[in-house]
This record gives sequence, C-alpha cells and structure tokens, in this order.
Amino acid sequence: MFIIQGADVSCLYNSTIKKQIKNNMSDHSLLMIPGPIEFSDEVLQANAHPSMSHVGAPFINVFGESLELLRKVFVSEDAQPLVVAGSGTLGWDIVAANITERGDNVLFRRMVITLLINTTKQKSFETYGVTATQLKAAIGERPTSDQVEVALKERKYKLVSITHVDTSTGVLSDVKLISEVVRRVSPDTLIVVDGVCSVGGEELLFDEWGVDIAITASQKAIGVPPGLSISAFSKRAISTFNSRTTPPSSYFASLKKWLPIMQAYESRKPMYFATPPVQLIYALHASLKKITERPMSERFQLHKDASNKVKSAVRELGLKQVPTQDQFAANTMTAVYLPEGLTLPDVLPKLSQKGIIFAGGLHREIATKYFRIGHMGITATDSGRNDLDKAIQGLKEVLSEATQKH
Amino acid sequence: MFIIQGADVSCLYNSTIKKQIKNNMSDHSLLMIPGPIEFSDEVLQANAHPSMSHVGAPFINVFGESLELLRKVFVSEDAQPLVVAGSGTLGWDIVAANITERGDNVLFRRMVITLLINTTKQKSFETYGVTATQLKAAIGERPTSDQVEVALKERKYKLVSITHVDTSTGVLSDVKLISEVVRRVSPDTLIVVDGVCSVGGEELLFDEWGVDIAITASQKAIGVPPGLSISAFSKRAISTFNSRTTPPSSYFASLKKWLPIMQAYESRKPMYFATPPVQLIYALHASLKKITERPMSERFQLHKDASNKVKSAVRELGLKQVPTQDQFAANTMTAVYLPEGLTLPDVLPKLSQKGIIFAGGLHREIATKYFRIGHMGITATDSGRNDLDKAIQGLKEVLSEATQKH
Repeated sequence: MFIIQGADVSCLYNSTIKKQIKNNMSDHSLLMIPGPIEFSDEVLQANAHPSMSHVGAPFINVFGESLELLRKVFVSEDAQPLVVAGSGTLGWDIVAANITERGDNVLFRRMVITLLINTTKQKSFETYGVTATQLKAAIGERPTSDQVEVALKERKYKLVSITHVDTSTGVLSDVKLISEVVRRVSPDTLIVVDGVCSVGGEELLFDEWGVDIAITASQKAIGVPPGLSISAFSKRAISTFNSRTTPPSSYFASLKKWLPIMQAYESRKPMYFATPPVQLIYALHASLKKITERPMSERFQLHKDASNKVKSAVRELGLKQVPTQDQFAANTMTAVYLPEGLTLPDVLPKLSQKGIIFAGGLHREIATKYFRIGHMGITATDSGRNDLDKAIQGLKEVLSEATQKH
Repeated sequence: MFIIQGADVSCLYNSTIKKQIKNNMSDHSLLMIPGPIEFSDEVLQANAHPSMSHVGAPFINVFGESLELLRKVFVSEDAQPLVVAGSGTLGWDIVAANITERGDNVLFRRMVITLLINTTKQKSFETYGVTATQLKAAIGERPTSDQVEVALKERKYKLVSITHVDTSTGVLSDVKLISEVVRRVSPDTLIVVDGVCSVGGEELLFDEWGVDIAITASQKAIGVPPGLSISAFSKRAISTFNSRTTPPSSYFASLKKWLPIMQAYESRKPMYFATPPVQLIYALHASLKKITERPMSERFQLHKDASNKVKSAVRELGLKQVPTQDQFAANTMTAVYLPEGLTLPDVLPKLSQKGIIFAGGLHREIATKYFRIGHMGITATDSGRNDLDKAIQGLKEVLSEATQKH
C-alpha cells in the first residue's frame, strides 16, 4: 500500500496520479528495436514537465546545460552541439543544405546495395544539387579502407559520410580508421558520421578521431523520446559553413538561424527563431544528466557487454548474424537471420505475445529473412531491468515452439 | 489523503509517482503567453507514454485517429492534415518548398511594418527563390479588403498568406472576408492561413471559407507541448503541389515524402520516412479527443468569452490595447499597452513573483511599451482552473502597487 498524506497534495495530484498509473498500465511491451528504445521513468516524467516559457530563465538553463552535457556525450571539447525539433532525417538536411553547395561532390561509405538510410542521405543531397557517390559492399560486409583510399584519389570530395552503425544490417564502421585514411589522403575533406544508432552507445571519440560532424536522433542511444535532431559540428565544419558562397538552401534547417540560437542558450541568454520543443528538452536534460554521471568509456563498455550477451545467445541458438564477421558487428543492435524454414510471422508475433518487440528486416534484398534486436540505453546499461534476459529467454522459447511445429 | 491499494501497483509505480509529484511541484507558474500555453494533465501524461514502436498497430491507430480528429478541428470534410516533427516555422518551409516554385510571386497580408512571424515567412520564401510582397498596415491596424483587391489586380499571385492572429500585436484578420475577395478577384490564387495563434481557438472554417492551406504549431490553441508542425491542405493545394514542374526544394519538408506517410497512417498501415515523435503524437491524440468532444463552435465561443473577460478587465484598469478597434482584436490573446510611466520591468517580474507569466512586447517599434496575455486552450475552456481570474487579479495588484510607487 502506498500513501500520500496532506490534503493539498491529494487535491492537486490525485487525477494526475491516476492517469499516470493508467498510462503505465497500458499495453506496453518491452521495446527492443533499433530505436525508439526503452525510456527511463525519469526521462518520461521530464517529458511531462508542466508548460514553461521557452524564453524564461528556468528553461534557458536546462537547454544551455543540455548543450554542455551533449559535448561530453560526443567526447569533444569544443564541438558545437545542435538540438532542433525534428527527426533524425532532418540531420541530413542540415548537413546537405549548409555544408555542401550546388555542384559539390559527396562520397558515401555505403555498406549495402539498397539501404534505406543511405537512400535518405543521397536523396537529401540531390535535393540541394549535390552529387552523391556511394561506396558499396556486399550485404553484411563493409567497404575496406583501401576502397575508400582509391575513391578519394579519383575525385575531390567535399565530405565523406560514414554510417557508424548501419541500422539495416547491424554492420559497424571503423570510424577511427576511415577518418585516418581521409585525413591522410584528402585532408580538406570533411568527415561526417551518421551516428544514428551509435551516439551514446558505440565508442565515438569526436575530437580524437577528427570527426567534423556527427548526427543522431533522440530516440536512439541518447534515450529520449523521438522528436529531436541532435548533431555536433567541429570548428572546421562551422568554418566551411561560414565560407560558403551561396545562402543555405533550406530555411528551417539553416545553420545561419540555428547557430546563434544554440550559442545564446549556452550563454544563458534568450533568443528566438522557432519555439523549441520544451518538454523534449527537459527529457533530454534528464537523460544526459544520467548518462554523464559516469565516464563515457564505461557506457561504451556496457553496450559492448550487452551486445556480447545477446550475440552469444544468438550463437548458442545456432543462428547466423547478418554481419559476416564478429569484428564488424555493431554493439547497439544485433541483426539475426531466421533459422532455415521459419518466416518472420512465425517469430515476431509470438514474441509480441510474450511482451517483447523486435524489428523485422529492413534491407530490401533480405528483409523477410532476418530480424533485428536493439540493445541501447537503459536496456543495455540498467541490468536491474533484466531486459536482455527477458528478450533472450523469449527468443529461445519462441524458436523452440516454432521449430517443433515445423 | 489519497490511497492506492494493491501491492503490485505500489511496487510498480511508486517511484514514478514520486517523480511525477516532484515534477508538478517544481516552480511551475501559470503560463499565459501566446504559446506555449498551459497543458492539461491528460496531455502531459500522454506525453510520458512508455516507448512504443512507430510502426506497430497501437501507435498507428493513435496517429491515424489523430489525423481524423484534426480534420474536425480544421472544420473540414476532406482536407489533408499533416503532422510533422518540427516547430511552427517548419510549416512555412513546407508551404514554400512544395507549393511555390522558383520565380513565383506570393502576397502577404502583412499587418505591421516589422513583424517577426512575417519576416520568417518572407525569408522562408526567399530561400526557395520565391518573391514575397507584403501588404502593410499601421501598428494595431490591418490591411483593408480593398487594399487586398488592388494588390491582387496588380499582379498574378500563386498564393495569398493571411495571418489569422498576429502574435505580435494581437490583431485578428477577417479570413472569411479576405478569402471571398481573393476567390472573386483572383480565383486561381491559393489562400494560406497562418493559423499559429488561431487553429483550435479562433473561428476558422476551412471548407466553408475556401481556405487552401492552414498551418499551426502544437503548443498554441491545440494544447500540446511544442515539437509538432500541424497543417491542413485542400484538394486544390495538393493538386497544385502535384502539378509542380520542379521537385520540392527541401528534403525534410517534402510533401512528396510526407503525403504518402499521412495517408498510410490514416488507413492504419505502417510506412516509414522519418521516425514520428511518438510521445507527442500520443499527447496530440489526448488533446484532440478532448477538444472534439464538443462542437468546435462551442470551443470558439469559449475563447471569445475568455477574451471578453480579459479585455473587459484591461479596459476597467484604464489600459489601452494594441489593436486599434475591438472588432479586430484576437480572441486567443490580448496585447496591452503599459500605463503611462510604467515599464515592463515594473510589471512582468512582479507578476512572475505571483506565479503568473505574461509575455513582453514583440513588435520592434513598440516592444518595450506593451505586454501580451495568452488565453488559449484549457486556460480559456476550463473555468474550474480559474486561470483568468488569477491572472486578472494579479495584474490588478501589480499595477496598483507599481502605480503607487511612481
């Protein structure tokens, strides 16, 4: 039994509490897809923060501190963080419309032949008159650093985009190695990391690895409800932006508008371009406070441990993973081929009945043949939740039942 | 005293509830600015909804139904609603990048000489190579329908944008009348309503008045935390988009991407372009369910009643309003000149100490001479909250104290 005493409190919060309970008791299954991920109570409650003025000191402090904390998450001393209402997709618009100009060449480190996220990137650049070249690799493989070197010698590229974790196949890029190659072969080329399934989970050392831009979305390893485009820009990237000869080719995504806003919030001054998503910023602040309580290296290790646990279980079940080598399998997610003879409808709905949500395949050529398990944020770092054990146990049971039927 | 019985419930929700209480007890003042507005407990709790898959049936149903309910709020039978993660500013990008093409002319019904929101609009159009003409009026005035008629006869305009409520001065446009003029004089010109301080509060009859596009943001009279760009497109607007000869000039704001997504959600099918802001959509759904429980005409009347109450009190205090005539003062907000001899620092911080937040002036030429009171959503419709009485009483006290000092 749980008692709150005091007439005032009961009058004020009675209805709120009841709704809160109803809310949490709704049919919420364990969400283990590669984003949105599970959110902590603290984060969800921050997302229910009462309405605050977007230009008042209390909110400005929260936004300003969030930017400072983000820098720690990116492991950078002086990168410029950017937090804008939107989805992860908006991040590509911000890069394409501000960093590149009509006629520029862009090199993608493309891992697979038809990849949703990379198609997004390519289309985004094409919208703004920029040519995007893709480096391809077979499914589950990744382009070698030699391939990158050859490509860089063929043409001058304004930027190289590296997908850190390919959400589609669970393949991990060696950002450190590729960055070294780019810096050596084409030192003027900017290094952009698509960190959408990585930032806050995979090891990513923005300054140390010489990254110029990293982009992500709130609902991935940052652990905040979807609705925020989150990115970081090096001084070099900002300087490239400042020296562009044409105006930014998007209005809402214009860095000319957003940079002064971010700088104002960080120096705790009010400034207006568009109303920030106040509640989501409170949620971001709550998550970043928790994340930065411990060194980022510990957090990266916890994600590796979680990944190892899931991948070991998958191996024990005799299942093959989409990445062809262990050394380039992501730590934030696991992409698993179905056992011979089973289809996704044999597995995912049964797991769902047990209150566990995995994602189906995404890569068009093999979409019906594999499924994806996300293990980011509190699912990886809070062992008290038992998310991993629950998911592994559920998978074992469902596969066993499904195999017996066949 | 308030008791929840049952061991399960107390174990599960104990920590959540405590945080909820702490949260609500944080220094939350009554927010009566022209957005963000006060949000109901139901809406805030929906914004704390546990994480759900963005392509799972439960969320698809909520998003689909939200689109259907939005149509009721716009008072339209067949407009296409659009809900995208972003701010209200994104709405202008969506219009500019999809409806107009490089070289088009656009006519603004501009009410004042330097107006933040209209500057946004103009810049947004200019980004995409569209020329924006502004119809000006003195501060507190609005251009006449004759002025609109003359302008329309001078040049062929692709669209006319009407700011329904000017957030800066609290001036209300006669959308119905201007629409009639546009339809008569230039029937091919699209009618766009900037409904950012109006949709869900001011009377706006999308179909009946022949509106083609209306845009707003979640944190205004819709009563949902900021982070959603919300708009509605007539069949004619969609057809203009479909017959454009160049591709949309923004990627993230592209209707080519978003229209199929909205149609898929409404037909309860999964489809992916960008991860929707799941929690904000739950919050939107909660607010729309409440709003559409009663006819929209009742809601519009409640906003008129609230406005009358505030404006009567302001008049009784001997204060002058920014709109020069009562007949074109908005019902969702009130813009009030300070009494002679008082400055904003004499008034707003004192109100804040009493737990009441009003907004300062926005129009550059008079910014230091007036303040703005927002009265939208539950502040206007839920008389049990006593928001209006509290605000009026606070204003009376503060002015009385400040005047005595001077």
